Amino acid sequence: MTKIFLALIFMVAVTASAGDLIGFSEKASETQQQLEKKFDTYLDANMMLGWMEYLTRRPHHAGSPKVKENAEWMAEKLRSWGFETEIEVFHVLIPRPLIRELTLLEPARYEAVLKEPTAPEDPVSKAIETEGLPPYNAYSADGDVTAELVYVNQGLPRDYEELELRGIDVKGKIVLARYGGSWRGIKPKLAYEKGAIGCLIYNDPKADGFYQGDAYPDGAFKHDHAVQRGSVLDLPLRPGDPLTPGWGATKDAKRIAREDADNIMKIPVLPISYHDAKPLMEALGGETAPPSWRGAMPVTYRIGPGPAKVRLKLKFDWKLIPAYNVIAKMKGSEAPDQWVIRGNHHDAWVVGATDPISGIVPMLAQAYATGQLAKTGWRPKRTLVFCAWDAEEPALLGSTDWVEHHADELKKKTVAYINTDGSSRGFLGVGGSHALEKMVNQVARDVPDPQTKGSVADRRFSLMMVDGGPESKKQARARQFQLGALGSGSDYTAFFQHLGLPTLNLGFGGEGRGGEYHTNFDTFAHYTRHRDPGLVYGVVLASVCGRLSLRLSEARVLPFDFTDTLKAVSGYVDEVVKLADDQRKAVAEHNELLAGGHYQRAADPKKKRRLPKPKSEVPYFNFAPLHNAVAGLKKEAAAWRNTMRTVAEQEKPDGADLQKLNALLYSSEQAFLGDGLPRRPWFRHQIYAPGFYTGYGVKTLPGIREGIEEGNYKEAQEQIHITAAAIDRLTALIRKATAMLP
Amino acid sequence: MTKIFLALIFMVAVTASAGDLIGFSEKASETQQQLEKKFDTYLDANMMLGWMEYLTRRPHHAGSPKVKENAEWMAEKLRSWGFETEIEVFHVLIPRPLIRELTLLEPARYEAVLKEPTAPEDPVSKAIETEGLPPYNAYSADGDVTAELVYVNQGLPRDYEELELRGIDVKGKIVLARYGGSWRGIKPKLAYEKGAIGCLIYNDPKADGFYQGDAYPDGAFKHDHAVQRGSVLDLPLRPGDPLTPGWGATKDAKRIAREDADNIMKIPVLPISYHDAKPLMEALGGETAPPSWRGAMPVTYRIGPGPAKVRLKLKFDWKLIPAYNVIAKMKGSEAPDQWVIRGNHHDAWVVGATDPISGIVPMLAQAYATGQLAKTGWRPKRTLVFCAWDAEEPALLGSTDWVEHHADELKKKTVAYINTDGSSRGFLGVGGSHALEKMVNQVARDVPDPQTKGSVADRRFSLMMVDGGPESKKQARARQFQLGALGSGSDYTAFFQHLGLPTLNLGFGGEGRGGEYHTNFDTFAHYTRHRDPGLVYGVVLASVCGRLSLRLSEARVLPFDFTDTLKAVSGYVDEVVKLADDQRKAVAEHNELLAGGHYQRAADPKKKRRLPKPKSEVPYFNFAPLHNAVAGLKKEAAAWRNTMRTVAEQEKPDGADLQKLNALLYSSEQAFLGDGLPRRPWFRHQIYAPGFYTGYGVKTLPGIREGIEEGNYKEAQEQIHITAAAIDRLTALIRKATAMLP
Repeated sequence: MTKIFLALIFMVAVTASAGDLIGFSEKASETQQQLEKKFDTYLDANMMLGWMEYLTRRPHHAGSPKVKENAEWMAEKLRSWGFETEIEVFHVLIPRPLIRELTLLEPARYEAVLKEPTAPEDPVSKAIETEGLPPYNAYSADGDVTAELVYVNQGLPRDYEELELRGIDVKGKIVLARYGGSWRGIKPKLAYEKGAIGCLIYNDPKADGFYQGDAYPDGAFKHDHAVQRGSVLDLPLRPGDPLTPGWGATKDAKRIAREDADNIMKIPVLPISYHDAKPLMEALGGETAPPSWRGAMPVTYRIGPGPAKVRLKLKFDWKLIPAYNVIAKMKGSEAPDQWVIRGNHHDAWVVGATDPISGIVPMLAQAYATGQLAKTGWRPKRTLVFCAWDAEEPALLGSTDWVEHHADELKKKTVAYINTDGSSRGFLGVGGSHALEKMVNQVARDVPDPQTKGSVADRRFSLMMVDGGPESKKQARARQFQLGALGSGSDYTAFFQHLGLPTLNLGFGGEGRGGEYHTNFDTFAHYTRHRDPGLVYGVVLASVCGRLSLRLSEARVLPFDFTDTLKAVSGYVDEVVKLADDQRKAVAEHNELLAGGHYQRAADPKKKRRLPKPKSEVPYFNFAPLHNAVAGLKKEAAAWRNTMRTVAEQEKPDGADLQKLNALLYSSEQAFLGDGLPRRPWFRHQIYAPGFYTGYGVKTLPGIREGIEEGNYKEAQEQIHITAAAIDRLTALIRKATAMLP
Repeated sequence: MTKIFLALIFMVAVTASAGDLIGFSEKASETQQQLEKKFDTYLDANMMLGWMEYLTRRPHHAGSPKVKENAEWMAEKLRSWGFETEIEVFHVLIPRPLIRELTLLEPARYEAVLKEPTAPEDPVSKAIETEGLPPYNAYSADGDVTAELVYVNQGLPRDYEELELRGIDVKGKIVLARYGGSWRGIKPKLAYEKGAIGCLIYNDPKADGFYQGDAYPDGAFKHDHAVQRGSVLDLPLRPGDPLTPGWGATKDAKRIAREDADNIMKIPVLPISYHDAKPLMEALGGETAPPSWRGAMPVTYRIGPGPAKVRLKLKFDWKLIPAYNVIAKMKGSEAPDQWVIRGNHHDAWVVGATDPISGIVPMLAQAYATGQLAKTGWRPKRTLVFCAWDAEEPALLGSTDWVEHHADELKKKTVAYINTDGSSRGFLGVGGSHALEKMVNQVARDVPDPQTKGSVADRRFSLMMVDGGPESKKQARARQFQLGALGSGSDYTAFFQHLGLPTLNLGFGGEGRGGEYHTNFDTFAHYTRHRDPGLVYGVVLASVCGRLSLRLSEARVLPFDFTDTLKAVSGYVDEVVKLADDQRKAVAEHNELLAGGHYQRAADPKKKRRLPKPKSEVPYFNFAPLHNAVAGLKKEAAAWRNTMRTVAEQEKPDGADLQKLNALLYSSEQAFLGDGLPRRPWFRHQIYAPGFYTGYGVKTLPGIREGIEEGNYKEAQEQIHITAAAIDRLTALIRKATAMLP
């Protein structure tokens, strides 16, 4: 069904794009679109469903028998489709639990269940019970701690500010945090910084339990015993193998001692179900939690500390585990040393139909279709590389250690890295290098949406028109959506944040439903019922990614348009200038309210509240270097844009000269690298980083922004200069590229 | 304790105001402040606690033995304090329940409890069980209906828009609505308009159950069987006795037939506890309710309709009941025909410690202190009138029928009506005639806050600085807070909205806690524990109201400053102009999204959604009459303000001339009366009205605003002219007043 349906509407789509592909001549555009049309004919939802079913039959976490089996199965497929394929193994530290015990000791005893059941109706349940990992947080510390409990809401900086106003200290306590508001690893990290000795993280039914809908298998959501597993390695500090920081974890690599790995959590951390959280919450006394802290358990949410007292005992095996990366290459005919890399991880926390198999199956379909094209005699101009990463879940290990190990080669050869991960039904979302924004928009314009009349771009524009703010509406009317800024949370991190390689990360979502993330319920049956029945959008994802890879492999001039980079960076500059102004105003007002006695007079004397502290005034920053850098970029970006289309149509430069120009273009993202962000040198991109206190969530112009937000004003000023210099480097590079044109 | 404490800080307060009272000469200001200081010495929290305890010993709903006993007790007190006192009786229709039955028939049977228990620890519980009314909604229709159930959230217009998008019709169904978002009577009114045949209203624990804190008696909040009683007469159409619309319900008054009373609800309506609502919600199927519709019951909130099917059977006695208004007067020495009226109702739904006794006890204290002053030989210049209204709870009956009966006299004599109702601990809130804003601010400046250093005005300014938006902060910095606009919900309604008499409504709040409103738990024990322990703010309320009454009774020139009226009205004009512009833009965008297919393309095709309908374009209105009226008012208001202070210091005008001027001033609010608002002629104030679809909630410039909001654009334009004429009448009146000055 799907295939015929797609074929029909593809005809409409091809008409829509008018031979204007960026980086291609008009004639080459037409040839390219014919190629892509042919590519689409090899996409087959039924074949993809079969692969998904096979890959999710048994738990395939890193180190499991099935993860190796899957790697070998994929390698075999890729070889059969014509790719030079190898399995590259790294040996990485992944702790697995030996002891997990949680007991409420006072005021009444309760032994936490800590067990996630399976749905008997689901055919993979038996395999999960036999081979699956129990719920735990990877890189929690070992420990046996007993203390009073404090509820800290989501465990974020603003939550600790609330606690401080109430005079509540978590020092020596165990904190109970709920999932949400940040990447989970921020919760124990902050709890530790505040002096807590243990951390429990539970999923509140408000987020994805009965509050949202029926539990699986009746519905898509979590039941009362479901638990989200996940890593708590300090990923905003550095992902990858903790024992080989900055280099590949090969078998014989030099390794640091575990005690010296500064990103391993310092306190024991355990994720629990709301069934186990409820007795703890009921046992908490003290003040009622503020309204925004309350979830959907039928309990009055209180903060404590105590009288609830808990004992948390955890022990892990701390073993080195082989991670199996599958690397498949199809050599380019014209520029074999220019690599278009496509990747998705293959390990899961359990069987992971959504995460990651819904992303890897479209990647396999893309590789298959590419192989079929090759069987007709076609060859890519540049080398196509497909990577199935292992051990993403514990700490992006497979991809990070591969990137670290091959850093020099990748810096020279990588045209772009295109990443996917779990994907669903609905709307296309894309983040990454803004220089590729125009190409992404053209691809989105050329791929029809399977549920509506129109392209996936049309559908997205309609959503932006209906639900978006003024900026979204403006973009939708102009018919070009801006790429999102990338933080972390998937395998693009090392490529983008560490090496500064052009990167895209994409997927579909917004309409699938579910609370299956990192649970026993992320199964084939769940996915095909609640996320993307029939893999309708899986096929579309393959089609979109196929076009992205093929346009990058086939374009005469690589489709880098820096006016979109300018637009993004210039927007970020406006944001940090506004941030400084707003914060200056807010601090001044705060200090005025404090000095005027207003906080005291407005407070209820019957509630015990501490007065907030005065804050340091925010200085005026010298933003001139940034503004000058943006002005410089504006000029050169426009110059390049105006000439590149002509170049695509011309015969010169060609051969080695052309590929030298292209290599210069794809090295452009590296212009943004500095010596590393303050306190986390592994993260070197001056424009994008995961937030130090948000986790996956991105901070743009991170050095400047976090300097201002955290009150490191001297550092913020230094970072303005460093970031301006990075923008200047890009400007110089573009000038050089323009100069290479005839 | 309280008294000494108050005396101490009053010394600070008197220093704060510098003989500048509006309407008084400098010398008279000082005398007045001495009088007020003396007034305060007669306020005694212990005496007030005794009165509160007496008045709340047994249920005293309209028609009960205790409500008559309380009226007689108050009358006796007032007489003993030197007031000419009478009990004026009206005979009003108040239905009381004979049959209340609610059964869930399908998919499983459940008989609703419909009984509100009492707290055994509370000494009044036995009396409540013997004499109290069960939970019901007064003026529900009789009926015996069986139908499928639909959950309609709060039952507001926006909720029905959501239902419509889902293709869900309530026609022939029984709706389940939760309390909140509007006055309760809007819910059955809208349900009826939409075709429903019955309405259930429940209190969700999110609003004031376990979600907020412990239930009474452990804490302040509702337990699972608590139910809010209340009226569902269509009060935005017309309050007061439904059988005597527009005239007083005296014993022999002409009465219309009950069938002709257009404000009696047309369908059966019953309030239920969340204990009774939970099985109904659990039995609902269909789509999960949108996030903002979900409460705190541990259930997935679904919309239905069905499979839940319920039977609702209600029957009422529909009897005429005597309502006992206590009216006490102390004749003025200089202008006996100028009345300063103070009122608060005395009937409750059960024993009503908060509502209304926390308001009437300060009024009694004010009357007592006034009587004590009189015993020293002092006499007010103008007549002071104290009114304790009966039958407020069912439909503002006592006050409305009194006002209707005495309309001609009141229009001539009323200087101002000062209303209170339930009051609590925390911050002063005042709404009413903006011409009195300056006086209110001076009073607030002169009364110390009992919990903080500073006046009640200081405390309020600090709250506005800490929690307020830009407009609040601006007011706080300028040290004058704007009076709130009055809608309805208490006994000022007939004075203000029907007769256009200068009105103030005030109370303290923001710090007391509780879900006792209209339940069995609104008791002396609850109030003195959770609302205002020791009646500390009860004393302050008496002090504030005492000053308001005494300044109005003693001022040489009545303290009307129309520049504050101008400020308020001019702000409302800006709002309706912006409303029209915003709505025009929103409608245009809506129609564009619809025509462009954006709604369709952005919608999830797997969810059954109807497309919204196109909306009528919003025309451009001729706002010039309003702007011209405001410009005219500006000039005259400034002229009056500049001269009135001089007049207070001069000897002329005096005698009859002076009182003629004052009578002109207090007739100013009547300038705002028109012939009645569209479809509800009883409401005649062109500047303020309760919203037709919000209930108590005010709509300013109601004719214009509701015309725009509801798409009656022709009517909105007519109302612009009518409202401008009302403003012009005020301008002419002020010009006349200024011309009376020497």
